[in-house]
Amino acid sequence: MPEFDLIGRIRDIVTVPCGPACVLGIGDDAAVLDVPPDRHLVVCTDTLVSGVHFPVGTLPEAIGHKALAVNLSDLAAMGAEPAWFFLALTLPDGDPAWVEDFARGLGALATDAGIALAGGDTTGGPLSITITALGTVEKGGALERGGAQPGDLVVVSGLPGRAALALRELKSGAEPAENELAALEYPVPRLGLGMALRGLATACIDLSDGLAADLGHILERSGAGASIDLAALPKDGALTGLSEQDRWSLQLTGGDDYELCFTVPPGRAKELPETAAHTGVPLTVIGRITEGVGLELRAPDGSRFEPGRAGYEHFSGENR
Amino acid sequence: MPEFDLIGRIRDIVTVPCGPACVLGIGDDAAVLDVPPDRHLVVCTDTLVSGVHFPVGTLPEAIGHKALAVNLSDLAAMGAEPAWFFLALTLPDGDPAWVEDFARGLGALATDAGIALAGGDTTGGPLSITITALGTVEKGGALERGGAQPGDLVVVSGLPGRAALALRELKSGAEPAENELAALEYPVPRLGLGMALRGLATACIDLSDGLAADLGHILERSGAGASIDLAALPKDGALTGLSEQDRWSLQLTGGDDYELCFTVPPGRAKELPETAAHTGVPLTVIGRITEGVGLELRAPDGSRFEPGRAGYEHFSGENR
Repeated sequence: MPEFDLIGRIRDIVTVPCGPACVLGIGDDAAVLDVPPDRHLVVCTDTLVSGVHFPVGTLPEAIGHKALAVNLSDLAAMGAEPAWFFLALTLPDGDPAWVEDFARGLGALATDAGIALAGGDTTGGPLSITITALGTVEKGGALERGGAQPGDLVVVSGLPGRAALALRELKSGAEPAENELAALEYPVPRLGLGMALRGLATACIDLSDGLAADLGHILERSGAGASIDLAALPKDGALTGLSEQDRWSLQLTGGDDYELCFTVPPGRAKELPETAAHTGVPLTVIGRITEGVGLELRAPDGSRFEPGRAGYEHFSGENR
Repeated sequence: MPEFDLIGRIRDIVTVPCGPACVLGIGDDAAVLDVPPDRHLVVCTDTLVSGVHFPVGTLPEAIGHKALAVNLSDLAAMGAEPAWFFLALTLPDGDPAWVEDFARGLGALATDAGIALAGGDTTGGPLSITITALGTVEKGGALERGGAQPGDLVVVSGLPGRAALALRELKSGAEPAENELAALEYPVPRLGLGMALRGLATACIDLSDGLAADLGHILERSGAGASIDLAALPKDGALTGLSEQDRWSLQLTGGDDYELCFTVPPGRAKELPETAAHTGVPLTVIGRITEGVGLELRAPDGSRFEPGRAGYEHFSGENR
């Protein structure tokens, strides 16, 4: 299938209109975009490689969803509103059915998020997808990693650890429970929550490499430490069937959650239930920012816990 | 070499400062950028895959240069001024020497073009580079493909065909002349020319897939035809050693030139010599836009010419 037809099929399926701020969309050497003068532009890029970021044989719909989701999750962590994305798709062959299924997964999430495909590039080679996502945020309103203050509460959204559990079960030949598999294959970027946290959170990050590693980035940029109460980690579904030690390790070091971890001043903790209710996303206070250095993981008996795995060692990362 | 170190090495070498418009650069979930209120944002993305867009074994400096050059060439074709770029680098291993050489090629061109690295992602997998480049242009000033009018002159910059000649010689085991090899490995994006063409050119495109195919995109978007005088095609260096038929075919269908092809109203042809002198880029009038459909290639004896190759059949393309 020639490139033109491939792109044509993707455009037919990913139908979010580019909007009036899109002066020139797909079909020229570049897109021309009009960023509102009262807003900052927020830009991130992330690559998924077959066999590295998803198992070979993953359904094309799930790949299309996830390639966009991981980028939208970065926009969410900044409190940004999605606007446009650019798709660089490298394919071993031009199988039209694969491309259409991929575009359907991509397009469904693009519609949910209200983000328009504004350009891209297709090329032949080993299966890989790089998406660059552009959003906007009120000037001065972006959530950053570096603003956590001693005394701030550490909060996490959703149920970290489910994606890692599903991945571990897939690797061992077991069949993950439906909710856990969905968490791995169809992560829901927390865009509404990110936008709701503007003016409330002092620091924010999305969980791609694992809670311990990603919270570590907040601590490093903020020049602070944190104490985490492991008994407070949220649990539900298949996670409740694990031993505590095993669950904590998965929740702290398992990647691919795409939940948000953020900090709020203690005086504003009372706003969290309303934020959770308003956005429909469960929020759990799991600890506190300290004046120390590094991350202290406290078991219910008061002992310090060392996670059983040394971080989520895929090679990928955020906007560094 | 862990990802953090890789990124650190690249940042040490690609040193163009992100500038005051870069509210938040590398090191958070996304970059936060301030686009001047009187300017439009121009965005393009292009992927290079090892063995597809460059021969396996190409020097890492040349790969770094070319990965950025092909994107800057798209900005040039829009008349945009480069601002920021995002690097998605997929590497089979973390060889520090390779990464440093790659970053040197990338950084030298970034310095020449005044474009800052504002973010990115590194991942493990088959060698591939996706760059997304952001530029800006005065509102309403972007060059597009769709504005060519019957009677306009068709102009090309530089010496199309040199990159294709070098590639053909490399494939046959011969050693290309220095200028031709440089045209293939170190194409110079025509940024100054693109900016100088704002308000002068009625349509513009960069030559990535070959003159005939890329001019064809202008014609399609403009709803016009063109007649090209093959005797007018510029020639120099190793191109002069070819038979006319062979040279025309290479110049019309060979890719990877990254020259600009554009149209100007006939009454403004007298401005071309000054534009060429001012930008230091040779400009050659090669034909004229017609009211017809498609591309007419006229040999000096008046006969119609059919190029010997059916277009530049790599799988890649521009912002479609």
